[in-house]
Amino acid sequence: MEAEIIAVGTELLLGDILNTNAQFLSRELAALGISVHYQTVVGDNAERLENVVHRARQRSDLLIFSGGLGPTEDDLTKQTVAKAYGDELRFDEEELKKIQGFFRAWGRTMPENNRRQAYVPVNGRKIENHNGTAPGMIFEDTREKGKYAVLLPGPPKELQPMFLQTVRPWLASMSDSVLYSLTLRVMGIGESHLQEKIGHLLENQNPTAALYAKTSEVVIRITAKAKDLQSAKDLCSEYADRFYKILGDFIYTQTEDSLEETVVHILKEKGKSVATAESCTGGLLSARITAVPGSSEVFEYGACTYANHVKEQVLHVKHETLEQYGAVSPQVAAEMAEGVRRVSGADFGVGITGIAGPGGGTPEKPVGLVYVAAACADTTYVQKLVITGRTREIVRLSSTQRALDMIRRLALQLEQPGCRMFPAGTPADFPQDVQIKDV
Amino acid sequence: MEAEIIAVGTELLLGDILNTNAQFLSRELAALGISVHYQTVVGDNAERLENVVHRARQRSDLLIFSGGLGPTEDDLTKQTVAKAYGDELRFDEEELKKIQGFFRAWGRTMPENNRRQAYVPVNGRKIENHNGTAPGMIFEDTREKGKYAVLLPGPPKELQPMFLQTVRPWLASMSDSVLYSLTLRVMGIGESHLQEKIGHLLENQNPTAALYAKTSEVVIRITAKAKDLQSAKDLCSEYADRFYKILGDFIYTQTEDSLEETVVHILKEKGKSVATAESCTGGLLSARITAVPGSSEVFEYGACTYANHVKEQVLHVKHETLEQYGAVSPQVAAEMAEGVRRVSGADFGVGITGIAGPGGGTPEKPVGLVYVAAACADTTYVQKLVITGRTREIVRLSSTQRALDMIRRLALQLEQPGCRMFPAGTPADFPQDVQIKDV
Repeated sequence: MEAEIIAVGTELLLGDILNTNAQFLSRELAALGISVHYQTVVGDNAERLENVVHRARQRSDLLIFSGGLGPTEDDLTKQTVAKAYGDELRFDEEELKKIQGFFRAWGRTMPENNRRQAYVPVNGRKIENHNGTAPGMIFEDTREKGKYAVLLPGPPKELQPMFLQTVRPWLASMSDSVLYSLTLRVMGIGESHLQEKIGHLLENQNPTAALYAKTSEVVIRITAKAKDLQSAKDLCSEYADRFYKILGDFIYTQTEDSLEETVVHILKEKGKSVATAESCTGGLLSARITAVPGSSEVFEYGACTYANHVKEQVLHVKHETLEQYGAVSPQVAAEMAEGVRRVSGADFGVGITGIAGPGGGTPEKPVGLVYVAAACADTTYVQKLVITGRTREIVRLSSTQRALDMIRRLALQLEQPGCRMFPAGTPADFPQDVQIKDV
Repeated sequence: MEAEIIAVGTELLLGDILNTNAQFLSRELAALGISVHYQTVVGDNAERLENVVHRARQRSDLLIFSGGLGPTEDDLTKQTVAKAYGDELRFDEEELKKIQGFFRAWGRTMPENNRRQAYVPVNGRKIENHNGTAPGMIFEDTREKGKYAVLLPGPPKELQPMFLQTVRPWLASMSDSVLYSLTLRVMGIGESHLQEKIGHLLENQNPTAALYAKTSEVVIRITAKAKDLQSAKDLCSEYADRFYKILGDFIYTQTEDSLEETVVHILKEKGKSVATAESCTGGLLSARITAVPGSSEVFEYGACTYANHVKEQVLHVKHETLEQYGAVSPQVAAEMAEGVRRVSGADFGVGITGIAGPGGGTPEKPVGLVYVAAACADTTYVQKLVITGRTREIVRLSSTQRALDMIRRLALQLEQPGCRMFPAGTPADFPQDVQIKDV
């Protein structure tokens, strides 16, 4: 089945709002195995709308419209689509009562305009709207079976539940197979390196697997088609095993959870806590951890120690260490992690120090050089990042991403790839052969 | 001039990304007085792309394309548009050198694929890309003068500067009048309240003024049309005065600067520094401040004191204050602000404590109750926020937004509307009549 998405609304053409409906509907249709070939936005203009509908109806089996059903919008969309699909509209008393009920609940009287929203298809079906006054509708072409148009209201709070509750099951029922998707999130391997390792797994027919690169992580989406849900799930999970065999603990979750959510959940489960000491990331790491509801169970203290004297005063980083190696050094990162762990009494301490840019870089210590340290009772690990050609924002985000992964590995007692052990009190020069990451 | 916007990219049709370029371009074109009649998204498919280009070229004078210029995308968009507009492509050695230069700066060798990006129009012109490898281009129909196609790369960080630096001035030069826009950013008044105060100024013909509500702030954009730039600027700035007369220091900037950028610049100018103490915002305030390059001149220390004992230990909040009033109280906010100011030696201290949700609320202290305090040498101001029906993310963001505005007002020695003075050491009950903000 080939589909297209048509949004009706001048506010989209003026750039006043973002077309989030197109993304939502596209993603949902993709998950159902329905290809979307076009997205179109057109204004509330009879001639242009008619042309768009006419053309789309010719080339696609399924049109999904968003918007154009409001009380001020003249019924243009409904009438145009009804005509194109050989249907007509009728006034629905039951629908009118529902609309009046909404206004009663809001303590207002219904404006006359809203009567228009009670017109529904004669041959097609209406879709109930539990969150607003405009009903949706499904038209089937009366002259060419198997061609459909679905009309949904524009507000996402109305469109999304209507799609999920009514349209999705209806579309799924038309297919003799079921689709299921599973997501693996991968942290600590760059995209190109990952392509090399698992490229051969991305060319499968069923399940399919696709890579999506995000900042400092990669998402693998596995999608299987089968005759029933359980078979599709089994196919996905068997195929996921092949990724696990290659990537192992570089896969940090098989859910929709972000890395910070994953880390907070693991810490809770293990009954461990973490404290953070941040220089160049300035509190971004603690902000990400505390963005997770319930993080107070595993996080009590974060220190944003931007100035050197604050590193000494608050974290007890040694003056000599700062003098000898400079603030951006593996030694200082390690002492920050150890210091914040000690003063907070947390199980794990993290320290981040680096040069986020755009200023402050030198040939020896360029912009994008960041040291991330993670300390537990007996060991401190330090990772050196060299994040070149990226913005301050990306350098900071990538550094916190690495820090979160180090906490995850500490809590799960996993290896810390690319890290050096850094025994406290051994201010040896950081080895130069350390892995330079592609973030 | 009638325009349409065409995005090329399968990732949009799969719903993997949002089409923010369409919004950006639509808004910019509207500001130039150019009507956008359609937005279309099409995938990397030769036949469908050709059909879309063919049809759009017939009905519109100006097509703006985003995406389809990446190294892996087969040159389809460039070739299709060149053909439709009667132009051809040539290999540009100079462009190749630029692309190679980018890769050198990133410390990588250029993959062979990227050579394709050095093809530019024979008759049309290329547009320089300072933030990526793909140049943009402008085609003029060789058979029908006055019909244009503009190709821009998909990443917003490349597309936006290219549009603003090259395409906008070019479009403006084709008109016999000049457009100029000026942006006022307003903080501390809710949108509905603002509508009441300045609604009458939004119905003007020239300059026009439009409101855009963001999280916890409102942007007013004034746009004037005149025969030359200076006249347009003058019109804007005269009209801006009318807003200043009503809104005064609720307008925090007349530039594109964010509130955190504005605050850092003001602090630098005044030679003042700030330290932060955060509970429910967990470091988000310090992260926002330190996101501004050069913030180390005005910011040295932030404490993220999530647990009560840490508030006592690190900030010297009194045990009795926590016992008597609870952690979420104006008294504790004030002591946090005063404490961090004292321990850091900064000119100003900020304290934030509240209930970000979704859990942790009670009838007396519901989710969304936040106290923000700002302390200077002689006074401490406390503001009570009640942010209802919003997500954890919005509660946290709005709270830091208010905190930044309080720092701005401290540094500029302005009044602190909606705040109570909170003399240190006077743990009186916070007055109940304090303004409840619509954030």
